[in-house]
Amino acid sequence: MKKKLLAASLALIFGAGAGYVVNTYAQQKPEVLLKQRQGAMALQGKYFGQLNAMAQGKAPYNAQIVVRNAGYLAALSEMPWDGFSPDTKDEKSRALPAVWSDAGQFKEAQERFQGAVAKLVAAKGDETTAKAAIGEVGKACGACHDHFRAK
Amino acid sequence: MKKKLLAASLALIFGAGAGYVVNTYAQQKPEVLLKQRQGAMALQGKYFGQLNAMAQGKAPYNAQIVVRNAGYLAALSEMPWDGFSPDTKDEKSRALPAVWSDAGQFKEAQERFQGAVAKLVAAKGDETTAKAAIGEVGKACGACHDHFRAK
Repeated sequence: MKKKLLAASLALIFGAGAGYVVNTYAQQKPEVLLKQRQGAMALQGKYFGQLNAMAQGKAPYNAQIVVRNAGYLAALSEMPWDGFSPDTKDEKSRALPAVWSDAGQFKEAQERFQGAVAKLVAAKGDETTAKAAIGEVGKACGACHDHFRAK
Repeated sequence: MKKKLLAASLALIFGAGAGYVVNTYAQQKPEVLLKQRQGAMALQGKYFGQLNAMAQGKAPYNAQIVVRNAGYLAALSEMPWDGFSPDTKDEKSRALPAVWSDAGQFKEAQERFQGAVAKLVAAKGDETTAKAAIGEVGKACGACHDHFRAK
């Protein structure tokens, strides 16, 4: 029994390991957390903006850039969220109170965005598939901003 | 002859494709470029800081986090540089004039950093190898900051 419990606990600790350590390290000053999460958003804008221009026909389609930026966005889509720590509530930013009061919906919005980025990665630069995925990514960005970011 | 020239030109265009498109898109306002490159630096600090704490024994070693952060750093190590566009020279930042006057050395410093990150990725979370690579990454950060960033 003890052995089973130990095994279960270890599995739990191991499974939760990444999140746990991240949370431990996230004990940063609120202004640092803010700067980091805004940095991730600024870079999402940089690399999505290039793709959006292609999807809208404002720039020539370039499969190499699409594949590269999809990879960048996959990483960047994981980076901002632990920066929305409750102790950053009083920092000056465009984050709306709903980020903390509707945490469940905020999490769903993050996952919708990550799911759309995953489709973009899976497109492997195929123009039709990638352009559709870029559209979905854009809608996910907008939907989250509508609810959780001040105009 | 014409055919050969065409083939060579296409190879050149294809090979240079990524850089070309990036440069085209980089026609952003200087303050946007500054924000994006500072965002990349802030995130390098976030994810390297966690690893450095492990390498220095200030945090328990966690292979999952090491592998994850190595991947993040691989992406982030490519992101800041096109933000050091000459038209950002007058933006208020800690970038020293050497960024533009010693462009070759600045490029070498970037490549040293990317090389060290590549070793960290290749370590695949193996503690001894990863800790050595983390040390190299830290030295690459410091060497670049010493020459190209105000104290």
